[in-house]
Amino acid sequence: MFETKKFIENALEEIRNTVCGKKVISACSGGVDSTVATFLVHKAVGEKLTAVFIDDGLRREGEPEFVVKTLKNLGIKSKFIDARKGFFAALKGKTDAEEKRKAFREKFYKTLGEVSKELKIEFIVQGTIKADVIETVKGIKSQHNVLEQIGIDSQMYGYKIIEPLKELFKPEVRKVGRELGLPKEISERMPFPGPALSLRVLGEVTPEKVAIVRKATEIVEAETGELKTFQNFAVLHNDKATGIKNGNRVYGNIITVRIVDSEDAVTAKATQVPYQTLMKISERITGEIPSVVRCLYDITDKPPSTIEFE
Amino acid sequence: MFETKKFIENALEEIRNTVCGKKVISACSGGVDSTVATFLVHKAVGEKLTAVFIDDGLRREGEPEFVVKTLKNLGIKSKFIDARKGFFAALKGKTDAEEKRKAFREKFYKTLGEVSKELKIEFIVQGTIKADVIETVKGIKSQHNVLEQIGIDSQMYGYKIIEPLKELFKPEVRKVGRELGLPKEISERMPFPGPALSLRVLGEVTPEKVAIVRKATEIVEAETGELKTFQNFAVLHNDKATGIKNGNRVYGNIITVRIVDSEDAVTAKATQVPYQTLMKISERITGEIPSVVRCLYDITDKPPSTIEFE
Repeated sequence: MFETKKFIENALEEIRNTVCGKKVISACSGGVDSTVATFLVHKAVGEKLTAVFIDDGLRREGEPEFVVKTLKNLGIKSKFIDARKGFFAALKGKTDAEEKRKAFREKFYKTLGEVSKELKIEFIVQGTIKADVIETVKGIKSQHNVLEQIGIDSQMYGYKIIEPLKELFKPEVRKVGRELGLPKEISERMPFPGPALSLRVLGEVTPEKVAIVRKATEIVEAETGELKTFQNFAVLHNDKATGIKNGNRVYGNIITVRIVDSEDAVTAKATQVPYQTLMKISERITGEIPSVVRCLYDITDKPPSTIEFE
Repeated sequence: MFETKKFIENALEEIRNTVCGKKVISACSGGVDSTVATFLVHKAVGEKLTAVFIDDGLRREGEPEFVVKTLKNLGIKSKFIDARKGFFAALKGKTDAEEKRKAFREKFYKTLGEVSKELKIEFIVQGTIKADVIETVKGIKSQHNVLEQIGIDSQMYGYKIIEPLKELFKPEVRKVGRELGLPKEISERMPFPGPALSLRVLGEVTPEKVAIVRKATEIVEAETGELKTFQNFAVLHNDKATGIKNGNRVYGNIITVRIVDSEDAVTAKATQVPYQTLMKISERITGEIPSVVRCLYDITDKPPSTIEFE
């Protein structure tokens, strides 16, 4: 049985002892894990913490504004970094899933390194959780926020990493969030991968392709919000397919809709979404995004597939 | 109102007048259209006709044997041509849908040209139907069996083409088949494209990829045969996705299942197949084909998509 209050008590003390009055930044993407980690450290060290939101150009529609507003409402000092060009440059020409993850990770840590130099800090907080560590160590996929566990010394980037949630699984992270008094829109938030939409554009990642999958994601979220599923999102294929738009043959884009039920992301079931909802999503995506001619629904559990495509 | 008997009467007379006692071959793939056309010409000229089955390596599991047996049972003289190597060579390196269709068409007509020289014939029968002509002329997609309607003279290949069904739509073709006394397994057969599985392997077509989609097709047909839908098949993506097999991360293949209801293939609805059936298909495909980690279901109507992916 996980004792939430006791965990928080211990974590606050440990964080204070580690940080020891120095300045610290927290990489906050707006997801459950990084926001809970940020808020926990804020509780521990208050004004010594600056939350950093890196706009990598790969976030969902409205997400940068949402994160900035959330941090402000929570009384956390924050810094916004527009790194869109740099991330797209780092991803250019990369088509393999692991290569893309590594390019994202490299750019992510370098960007944090620049901020830490600028702000003269020694510590960076990350929302790494147990599942990230397990999956990276087992070679399922290399999570962007797992370094030391696979032998990469974060000091090469110029800072030490604090991971207050690295022993917790997702349901426990949510319990900590609730106990800390985070608003529901954060503590109950759907999981969203660190490398964001870059994993949901198969093949090379470009601003144009991210814009397509961002719009598709918005439609999927709007139409399935009431299903209360574990995750629901859209993926843009690199493959193309024939279709007909305005009576003409076109060779257009394919979007897959992925919706799953899960407890902890370790295993997952493809949700049996009512066809009425699926057809509405298909009609909206092909109707509202000019280049998309085809919509697919993922019917695979994890295993044998993973939740994300990359 | 289509008058089946009258159509057949006229067609038989016209075919006899055209062929005029000479030798003729018919390109029979085993599909409804080409088999009905072949049987019609057989009725008209009997032993003057030789049905030719070209094994292009792109047919479904057991299909070559099925076609040979069917022709034998119908009392039609036939010739089997193993052209697998040549077709794969023609498709090598081609990734664009239209390029692949053109490569298939070229190889198809050249192969027929060789047979026609060998057998010293002047006429080739084809099962072109009205929808093929309309789609090719409108530029929706170039059907492999439409030449003269887009300005290509078949005599460059060394023969003249007879297309007895070119004014009919699919339901009328089936009526003709029934009236001629073809067995139900032919007259009620699901449509299958001329270029066969080459259109159901996105990207470059190789024998290995055709083997994967052939196995997936067999599973889809076995699990959905009772649905009585217009078409049901599998498509192999060129894109790959992450998955987990035997506890290890793999970067594997993606199969899409496509099942539609339609009258005439001009428009179509994605069939709302019960989830129990879809999940069974997904489990079988990912379980029985080692390289496949993910199964998708196409939820798009035609338009805006087409029935086939290419």
